[in-house]
Amino acid sequence: MSSVLTLLTDFGLQDPYVGSMKGVIAGIAPQVQVIDLTHLIPPQDIAAARFCLMQACSDFPQGTIHVAVVDPGVGGCRRAVAIQTAEAYWVGPDNGLFSGILECSPPLAAVALTRSQWWRSPSPSATFHGRDLFAPVAAHLANGVSLDQLGDPISFSSLVTLDLLPCQSLPTGLRGSIQYQDHFGNLITTLPGCRVLAQGWQIRVGNQVIPMGLTFSSVSPGERVALIGSHGWVEIAVNQGHAGQSLGLSVGDPITLEFLPISPQGELSPS
Amino acid sequence: MSSVLTLLTDFGLQDPYVGSMKGVIAGIAPQVQVIDLTHLIPPQDIAAARFCLMQACSDFPQGTIHVAVVDPGVGGCRRAVAIQTAEAYWVGPDNGLFSGILECSPPLAAVALTRSQWWRSPSPSATFHGRDLFAPVAAHLANGVSLDQLGDPISFSSLVTLDLLPCQSLPTGLRGSIQYQDHFGNLITTLPGCRVLAQGWQIRVGNQVIPMGLTFSSVSPGERVALIGSHGWVEIAVNQGHAGQSLGLSVGDPITLEFLPISPQGELSPS
Amino acid sequence: MSSVLTLLTDFGLQDPYVGSMKGVIAGIAPQVQVIDLTHLIPPQDIAAARFCLMQACSDFPQGTIHVAVVDPGVGGCRRAVAIQTAEAYWVGPDNGLFSGILECSPPLAAVALTRSQWWRSPSPSATFHGRDLFAPVAAHLANGVSLDQLGDPISFSSLVTLDLLPCQSLPTGLRGSIQYQDHFGNLITTLPGCRVLAQGWQIRVGNQVIPMGLTFSSVSPGERVALIGSHGWVEIAVNQGHAGQSLGLSVGDPITLEFLPISPQGELSPS
Repeated sequence: MSSVLTLLTDFGLQDPYVGSMKGVIAGIAPQVQVIDLTHLIPPQDIAAARFCLMQACSDFPQGTIHVAVVDPGVGGCRRAVAIQTAEAYWVGPDNGLFSGILECSPPLAAVALTRSQWWRSPSPSATFHGRDLFAPVAAHLANGVSLDQLGDPISFSSLVTLDLLPCQSLPTGLRGSIQYQDHFGNLITTLPGCRVLAQGWQIRVGNQVIPMGLTFSSVSPGERVALIGSHGWVEIAVNQGHAGQSLGLSVGDPITLEFLPISPQGELSPS
Repeated sequence: MSSVLTLLTDFGLQDPYVGSMKGVIAGIAPQVQVIDLTHLIPPQDIAAARFCLMQACSDFPQGTIHVAVVDPGVGGCRRAVAIQTAEAYWVGPDNGLFSGILECSPPLAAVALTRSQWWRSPSPSATFHGRDLFAPVAAHLANGVSLDQLGDPISFSSLVTLDLLPCQSLPTGLRGSIQYQDHFGNLITTLPGCRVLAQGWQIRVGNQVIPMGLTFSSVSPGERVALIGSHGWVEIAVNQGHAGQSLGLSVGDPITLEFLPISPQGELSPS
Repeated sequence: MSSVLTLLTDFGLQDPYVGSMKGVIAGIAPQVQVIDLTHLIPPQDIAAARFCLMQACSDFPQGTIHVAVVDPGVGGCRRAVAIQTAEAYWVGPDNGLFSGILECSPPLAAVALTRSQWWRSPSPSATFHGRDLFAPVAAHLANGVSLDQLGDPISFSSLVTLDLLPCQSLPTGLRGSIQYQDHFGNLITTLPGCRVLAQGWQIRVGNQVIPMGLTFSSVSPGERVALIGSHGWVEIAVNQGHAGQSLGLSVGDPITLEFLPISPQGELSPS
């Protein structure tokens, strides 16, 4: 039995699609507390949804059910899945949405949602699996239905992953990529903050160097700074500005982090 | 006693107006689960609100109370009403908001909300009946107050309806109108999908012909397609585009659906 | 024990920041009903947040906990506070957010949130005190933890206030300022409606005169009108238009309200 269920979609807030999902859930599992992560994922932007799930999931109670519906392949042949990890359950299309989560927290169980007895009806619409399949399945899961009642097990290696350069060690630093741009224009990289906290460093993108700082206000307005964000990843920001536009970078672009040499006097020497 | 209450307004999400309605409800009926349908109905767009209610209501549990406040006549002489149908309760201004619902599900009871003992105060503000009248009345209804305690019965035929051409049979097809444009630009008609599922058909608007398809991706990007939407109505879409702009159509415009002749070989012959 | 908790931030709805705050609250105080006031406060606009809190607070049950996070000084030396008034609790940064509330309802107790045992972790992030400090503290408060357990008492006079000209009496009227512009462009003043209800009056801004009315529709579309808004303050509007742009006024600008002389025949004489 789970008591908290989250929703993340690209449905927007203008149409009543999210309300419909909540109505279906309330009809099956009225005791569940439903929390919106966001419904303003850019349409069909799986990378943005993947990052938002990674960013928020550790803030929820053990056993929370996370439903994510960013689903360019709805009505096609992509699988619908439910996945269990040590901390939570994940329900949605198998298109890479959960690949960030599963890098950090490997799956304990995964099933394809093939049993229509848990759907809204045996014939779901071709365009709205959020309401017709994912919401009711998640509500039944919250009621205590087990993963193996929901469908047939699938191999973990068959789960779709998103192609983003992860953190790699270099002789003098780290290499990774941009995995998300938030609506302030801040660029979040695939470099975990715990890999760099202990030493001085800077980010290099082509000829551009971005110094590290502790907060946005470590630099003057309009200046660039790299910091460990509240999400735990290395993040590139422009104080009171838009880093994505300023640097001409977007999701998937590679970046390099350089450790700064320490002089014999113990001082860091940025290049 | 109802346990689920929905809210639909054109109040937007920037000001705390929706929060105020929820505060009033929580003070009267703390046990009720409040679900937002949408608060981004275009200002004073009764047709959009009418359709959203039709679209979402079947996804909610029996006995749900739906509060809708799109209310160009607030402070004027329009009636405030509560209506009971077989599935749900409807609370809001009597301006056509509920006319789509009532076409499908006739009223069982309807009252004018004239008894100020159920209001937030005997003197509601001139501009915010959502908080001062509709929210508290709906919360008391959720607590078990009966419709005839809320006000005086009114005749069903006196309820305001919206003037939209409904589905009409023609010798070779159907005639209807556009009843809603969603924020993707998809045009939803007044033609129920159950009237056309069994045969080949196409939509005609002036000289333009739109072929039927099963999903948006039945046609190439930029092409027009007519399909049965997840809401159950015939819908006109442009794959990855904006049907309203592409076709120059808006709410209220008439459209024609033509059944395709079947050749002696059993093949459909689109014109 | 409080059962209702509200959230007001400038986090927007695109990123999962608000969801994270709710996840933290659900983990500590699952029984609490969380209601959004708004998350679309313009970034770092303390005046807008201050007004929204004043506007909405009287609509919530006694003992509601209001969490407000509009926090330009996050990570700096501004205090984090919890304040008790006769009606509610207030949790957030000490930067003037609550100064409007406290003008109407003086503090009964106020503490600086210095005890990290009630935080999400002893080392909060530098940028996200909403999740790491304010949400968990408010959830513990909802669970019955007392204010003096949360931190050390602070003097009421040390609480930061916002510098807005309040309502002042003039020989022939009142003087005040604009304290908020809503998203329709309506300008809300610091003049309470109860000071002017009884007599004819008009607003003067430089050479411009704005007549009083009862509702927006008291004047023709495009015309200016001053009225008592549903929030209880004198408000300047343009029927179907944008008062801020029309008048060139913004938050902080002074305005004058003139009582109209009454002629011997009992008629009002607007200038």
